[in-house]
Amino acid sequence: MVLEKINQPNDIKKIPREELPVLAQEIRSFLIEKLSVTGGHLASNLGVIEMTMALHLILTFPGDKVVWDVGHQSYTHKILTGRREGFDSLRKLGGLSGFPKREESACDVFDTGHSSTSISAALGIAQARDLAGDDYTVAAVIGDGSFTGGMVYEALNNASRMETNLIIILNDNGMSISENVGGLSSYLSTLRTNDAYTSLKRAAEDVLRHSGGGEAAIRRIRGMKNNLKSMLIPGSFFEQLGITYFGPIDGYNIDRMVTVFQNARKVRGAVVVHVLTKKGRGYSPAERMPARFHGTGPFEIETGLPAKKKEKADWSDIFSTVMCKEGKRTPNLCAVTAAMPDGTGLKRFSGKYPDRFFDVGIAEEHAVTFSAGLAVGGMIPVFAVYSSFLQRAFDQIVHDVCLQNLHVVFAIDRGGLVGADGETHQGIFDLSYLTMIPNICVLAPKNKWELADMLKWAVRKADGPVAIRYPRGSAYDGLAEFRAPVRYGKWEILYDESDICLLAVGSMVETALNVRTLLKKEGANCSLINCRFIKPLDGEVLRKAAQEHDLLVTLEENVENGGFGSQVLAYLNDCGEGVPVERIALPDAYIEAGSVDLLKKETALDVESVYKRIRTRMIGLFG
Amino acid sequence: MVLEKINQPNDIKKIPREELPVLAQEIRSFLIEKLSVTGGHLASNLGVIEMTMALHLILTFPGDKVVWDVGHQSYTHKILTGRREGFDSLRKLGGLSGFPKREESACDVFDTGHSSTSISAALGIAQARDLAGDDYTVAAVIGDGSFTGGMVYEALNNASRMETNLIIILNDNGMSISENVGGLSSYLSTLRTNDAYTSLKRAAEDVLRHSGGGEAAIRRIRGMKNNLKSMLIPGSFFEQLGITYFGPIDGYNIDRMVTVFQNARKVRGAVVVHVLTKKGRGYSPAERMPARFHGTGPFEIETGLPAKKKEKADWSDIFSTVMCKEGKRTPNLCAVTAAMPDGTGLKRFSGKYPDRFFDVGIAEEHAVTFSAGLAVGGMIPVFAVYSSFLQRAFDQIVHDVCLQNLHVVFAIDRGGLVGADGETHQGIFDLSYLTMIPNICVLAPKNKWELADMLKWAVRKADGPVAIRYPRGSAYDGLAEFRAPVRYGKWEILYDESDICLLAVGSMVETALNVRTLLKKEGANCSLINCRFIKPLDGEVLRKAAQEHDLLVTLEENVENGGFGSQVLAYLNDCGEGVPVERIALPDAYIEAGSVDLLKKETALDVESVYKRIRTRMIGLFG
Repeated sequence: MVLEKINQPNDIKKIPREELPVLAQEIRSFLIEKLSVTGGHLASNLGVIEMTMALHLILTFPGDKVVWDVGHQSYTHKILTGRREGFDSLRKLGGLSGFPKREESACDVFDTGHSSTSISAALGIAQARDLAGDDYTVAAVIGDGSFTGGMVYEALNNASRMETNLIIILNDNGMSISENVGGLSSYLSTLRTNDAYTSLKRAAEDVLRHSGGGEAAIRRIRGMKNNLKSMLIPGSFFEQLGITYFGPIDGYNIDRMVTVFQNARKVRGAVVVHVLTKKGRGYSPAERMPARFHGTGPFEIETGLPAKKKEKADWSDIFSTVMCKEGKRTPNLCAVTAAMPDGTGLKRFSGKYPDRFFDVGIAEEHAVTFSAGLAVGGMIPVFAVYSSFLQRAFDQIVHDVCLQNLHVVFAIDRGGLVGADGETHQGIFDLSYLTMIPNICVLAPKNKWELADMLKWAVRKADGPVAIRYPRGSAYDGLAEFRAPVRYGKWEILYDESDICLLAVGSMVETALNVRTLLKKEGANCSLINCRFIKPLDGEVLRKAAQEHDLLVTLEENVENGGFGSQVLAYLNDCGEGVPVERIALPDAYIEAGSVDLLKKETALDVESVYKRIRTRMIGLFG
Repeated sequence: MVLEKINQPNDIKKIPREELPVLAQEIRSFLIEKLSVTGGHLASNLGVIEMTMALHLILTFPGDKVVWDVGHQSYTHKILTGRREGFDSLRKLGGLSGFPKREESACDVFDTGHSSTSISAALGIAQARDLAGDDYTVAAVIGDGSFTGGMVYEALNNASRMETNLIIILNDNGMSISENVGGLSSYLSTLRTNDAYTSLKRAAEDVLRHSGGGEAAIRRIRGMKNNLKSMLIPGSFFEQLGITYFGPIDGYNIDRMVTVFQNARKVRGAVVVHVLTKKGRGYSPAERMPARFHGTGPFEIETGLPAKKKEKADWSDIFSTVMCKEGKRTPNLCAVTAAMPDGTGLKRFSGKYPDRFFDVGIAEEHAVTFSAGLAVGGMIPVFAVYSSFLQRAFDQIVHDVCLQNLHVVFAIDRGGLVGADGETHQGIFDLSYLTMIPNICVLAPKNKWELADMLKWAVRKADGPVAIRYPRGSAYDGLAEFRAPVRYGKWEILYDESDICLLAVGSMVETALNVRTLLKKEGANCSLINCRFIKPLDGEVLRKAAQEHDLLVTLEENVENGGFGSQVLAYLNDCGEGVPVERIALPDAYIEAGSVDLLKKETALDVESVYKRIRTRMIGLFG
């Protein structure tokens, strides 16, 4: 095995040239085999094996610095920097991260996870290098999908005027996660084929050869050729921004990439190297279904089928079904996604109502303000988005939606702990950053039927901004017997007893139910309230709960700062109700990757930890 | 006066063509005169009078919809839609807003305030129009400065593929607020002159005339001409994104603009009309000093000088001075601004240390991630930014700075109420959206010396992310006798008594001091603590305060949700300290424009209201 010779950074430089294709093939097989067991981002990683190898052949790690945009395509980089052994624990608690991590290796220079940040970060590192008088190479590797995110243009605009050396590798696979959208995407496709340039060049040469015109004409045509060179070559988009462009080049020709990357290092200022790759390269199920293999669970290598079948409907599936039904009932209902038609479950809606479906690309800021525009024009937009990605559009929620009190519905998927994607994908801040915004309603369903009811309420009854936050994974189908109609600002009392009152939000209602069962076994009295509205709180029910119980326990899958519990405290304080409150929430910290069950144990949000904590508090309070 | 004939929307259409220049001149004089008394955004408004008139000549309001990017250039639009009378109350409490406001007029279709949102909003409105089967015209008016903001590209990228009619008026004055930066800016300058295109076109024509080549060559050159047309005309940047481009045209030639705007209405899909204007047009002090007249206070018309001289140093001035000193002492100190070198006070630093100063344009997201990159490369970046603008970069603070625990300093100017700019500029959310983020320190100084001390601490002693938040306007220079050294997470006890304890943050320390004086007059005992660190809280001092007083009062110029007071409550609850707490903060609402003093009265944050509230609470508690 050639792969066994790669044990630390820069080992690849010792591999004979002729063995490089073998190494590429071995890495490909290694990734397919390992990921078939652990799951992970397969398609994007298979696409960039050769490109990453070429980079490692000319750069020296950790001296040179590469920033990986989004970062889930850094597996080959991890292998080539001596982390092959870690792949059995990929994306597990305490294991190898699925993203670059400074804490994991000196060869990871910048932690990423969200899209379109790499050029900004790399430009900062490059400037710091120049100021410090160093001369290492700085590169950003960024997919064409990330080019739909606005930050990229902010960075390119700055890269163009700073006289700092920076290599931007545009990894063009013609996809973001599902399929690319928009003008730049078409532009890049043109560059891929590149016929226009070739034929123009030929025309100019012909004319020069045959021209019977005077000297002035010849001079002009020569000038035109130079202009053509700078303005018509593929990449004039970049050149117009003042950035040198090389490409497009074949992302599977290592020799050619090595040559071009070496030339790129000699360019003064910023240079874009346009590399053509293919998602899923070399593994036919992933080539055929790149979206399915973007982030995959364990799978059968031979067929590409998931190792285990989905047993229950996901929250996204429930959302999908309700959106399709509501789309029929409500002719002005629109659906908006930022490059996540599959993940959010909007694919079916897009098939049924293509005119009212908008995939805006990875562009959460635009998505929110565009939705605000739709609402101004009389539509009812539902923006379906993962919790952590919505952070990108905080200012737009504050100003473009809530300030104008527009009827925009945010369907926030992946709220709470998400598991294997780790720190940058946990949806644990939303209850805090949303409830501080005036005019917005924030809801979370306890089970799948409640998600349906809330979504219908948000579309049919609400007339201002509404956010509904639900978790990743299987939709809870317990507590089917409780289905009180959704009413503005009203909670649902599930069990009305005394002594202890559990005030639970969303996914924590199931947890609270199980905690209550344990408490009941000991003979404790225990109420359970489904706190559907995190904003506004149900003041009436909350005051009554405070008056009729000896201990309130708030439960939420969100950071403690600014979350549900802290708002309960504030409400009780301001109305003068003094009652002990135990706040159960996530700590003020980033939560690493791991299975959701394990992470809940780690953060004491699992049934047993919550039960023990309440027991301890009860003993403290009542002896 | 022609102006007197303009009393409701569309009145301009009745003005004879030959009187239009007179009207323009009258509007110009009207704005100069009114703003010399009230203050406001003079330079940008003087620049777009004729362009706004041309728009009003071809559009019908409120049927047609114009979204004004940022919105401070909408004064002529307000005049032409019948709001001339409001200008005496411009930007005053209850008066005419300095920005478009849906509540103010049906002719204002979308509230703006922050940059680069207009194309997204207009695109949403245009799509809604198409879905509803309407046919009104939708336009966005956007300055070249706003083109440094990434959202614009997200929107253009989407505009290009949607077959919806949308007019984008690029109001190109070659400035953002101070001076434009970056590649696109240079590109736009090229379009302004446009020599390259003209000479190329001539060359192609010459060649065609004189060509002795065969038919094939002639055919090719004809093809080339078409290619030239689509690829070399000014605007190929837009054309490459699939957006039609018209221009550049003179922003003071009303007839020409009317013709071009009419043609633009006939274009299928999105069209950019590039209009050349000049900030401050027609008023020489504003033409000479557009940055000074961007947002101005009252001024003398003849000289352009401010009506009243600044008596005391602003917070920004203090920041400016300390940065210059620290720049000398700390060779790896860098300063970053997003198009606000004047406003933030970084201009002096930029003169002294040009290599370590970075104006990235209106691009807050890039600014934060770029700063993170600088920190990774060993620099100490200070990003000076207005509180409300930093909202744009929430996700970047969470992921690119705090997750990696990087040493980036946020100097947050205009924290708290800012006055005349109103809802979109009040810096009243920062304590909430920052303190919920792990790893960050959040500080606020009581007076000008403390800002200096905190900034030095943040640069020299801190090693993770630090945010220092200070108000707009004159820096408080009282309490000079209290200057305890800044220590991590430690508060400063100013007066240590009993009964009542005032826990005040930043600007509210001055208020608390005056409240205390009133309380002392009545013989009350009253402690006063300067709560310098909003995160982390000083748990030791807080617990002691809770144990030794009968009432704690928290005071902050921030919304109550998730702010300082709610964190004090959470801390006390979690450590089991039961003491009455009065939370004094801004309500859960947007705060309109008005003088800061009046707004404080309105929101009960002024000395008298706070004093009365404490008195009432004391009577409730102690009789």
